[in-house]
Amino acid sequence: MKLWVTEKQTPDLSLLIRTTATLFRKSSNHQNILIVDTPQYGKVLLLDNKFQTTDMDEFIYHEMIAHVPLYSHPAPSKVLVIGGGDGGTVREVLKHQSVDLVELAEIDRDVVEASKKYFPHLSSGFSDHRCKIIIADGVTYIKNMAGSYDIIIVDSTDPIGPAANLFTEDFYTAAYASLRANGILVSQTESPFLHTDFIVKTNRTLSAIFPIVRLYLAPIPTYPSGLWSFTVGSKKYDPSVPSRKGAIATKYYTPEIHKASFVLPRFLEDAIRTNKAI
Amino acid sequence: MKLWVTEKQTPDLSLLIRTTATLFRKSSNHQNILIVDTPQYGKVLLLDNKFQTTDMDEFIYHEMIAHVPLYSHPAPSKVLVIGGGDGGTVREVLKHQSVDLVELAEIDRDVVEASKKYFPHLSSGFSDHRCKIIIADGVTYIKNMAGSYDIIIVDSTDPIGPAANLFTEDFYTAAYASLRANGILVSQTESPFLHTDFIVKTNRTLSAIFPIVRLYLAPIPTYPSGLWSFTVGSKKYDPSVPSRKGAIATKYYTPEIHKASFVLPRFLEDAIRTNKAI
Repeated sequence: MKLWVTEKQTPDLSLLIRTTATLFRKSSNHQNILIVDTPQYGKVLLLDNKFQTTDMDEFIYHEMIAHVPLYSHPAPSKVLVIGGGDGGTVREVLKHQSVDLVELAEIDRDVVEASKKYFPHLSSGFSDHRCKIIIADGVTYIKNMAGSYDIIIVDSTDPIGPAANLFTEDFYTAAYASLRANGILVSQTESPFLHTDFIVKTNRTLSAIFPIVRLYLAPIPTYPSGLWSFTVGSKKYDPSVPSRKGAIATKYYTPEIHKASFVLPRFLEDAIRTNKAI
Repeated sequence: MKLWVTEKQTPDLSLLIRTTATLFRKSSNHQNILIVDTPQYGKVLLLDNKFQTTDMDEFIYHEMIAHVPLYSHPAPSKVLVIGGGDGGTVREVLKHQSVDLVELAEIDRDVVEASKKYFPHLSSGFSDHRCKIIIADGVTYIKNMAGSYDIIIVDSTDPIGPAANLFTEDFYTAAYASLRANGILVSQTESPFLHTDFIVKTNRTLSAIFPIVRLYLAPIPTYPSGLWSFTVGSKKYDPSVPSRKGAIATKYYTPEIHKASFVLPRFLEDAIRTNKAI
């Protein structure tokens, strides 16, 4: 008998991964959490039936959402991660020696606890003395944090359900206020192929708030279409080039990848420039 | 009732696309050909149950397999496409004004005929006076073509079944001989995530024949893992930078994308350098 876990990526598109064990299953106060073991991609975390992270490809997402903004800043010290309850982003942030505090504002305590148990290589940073876990809604949390952070990373689920408020003009305005004078915000912004409208809209929203707004891409095999986007709002630094050198151990990120990830396919460049999806 | 077409990308991984119509189905002398219509990606061509091309993402594959080698050459005149029976690669090659002949050596006449009927936007170049279609095995065909081509593009199916011979040392040696003095060969070489061993092996094989061997990447949503690789063997020109400017209409390719597509993730750089997959 074969068991497959399925993400209906759109009503007309599904990705199936064969599973050998169901390790964890819980309906938390916020979402359905499922962790399965798979021969193809190792352990896989799903939230509300969407693939969030897998042992195989987690390094790409976590390195790219963390190192691009952190290397764009000459000396990031205080970092806020919103969402990211699996811990992978915190782990990457902590590789930067200039960081003396990374706060994780995660709404769902059960995700944090499940990751500690089933993804120890992701949640390894939780025990670092520079890491502070806050179980809270990121939207509410940042309201009292004016001028606090060098970097804010929105490592959220899709812009529906629990995470919908993390993609609004109100949220981005509050995030701008909670950044220091030279701060940088980054947010995961879905697939360039399947969610072009959303990317264009987010770009427009952020451009009304931040002086510098840029988009970059990375391949994530288990996300819909296999290609993912990240949108950066920056107060001062150009996020498309590293501000400093480093010797951090990575599997995906390099300074050359940093620059190359901002080079957009023509259809996406056109969509952003004309404010219209293809 | 819902009908889905499935590619078992590996024994443990499947991609499903919902279909609304079966347009063509034939067991040819070489393979099973299936063309379906889908709400997500438009018309979709499958050969032996593998997604080959779709209306939605065909532009990426065809632009990248054609324009990268052609723009690396200062004046490509004679081009051979092996495989590529749908015509998308020929269509892109013909956009270069310096090209006065593109030969298509396709083993399966039924693919060519089906594409003429169901993918007219792909097969549009077949009626161009500069295009010559040869129904033949590419491996045999090039044996009598010493010193004939500026560019050879191996636009084949996976390195199993009908296409297996297109990835051997014997074939690459014959391809080298059939190129002109400054010629360039490019071959699709599978997924960096799922077929790293194969990419490393191909790199090694080509490096024993060509003085310059480079790898580049492009996202293809309907191919396994969503990221695809292309390996170039070049006699003289550096394939990672365009040799000339152009004003060709594209949806994916730009001169900046050309350069960025050669920037490899660290794990892949390491695999190539050390001759070992991750």
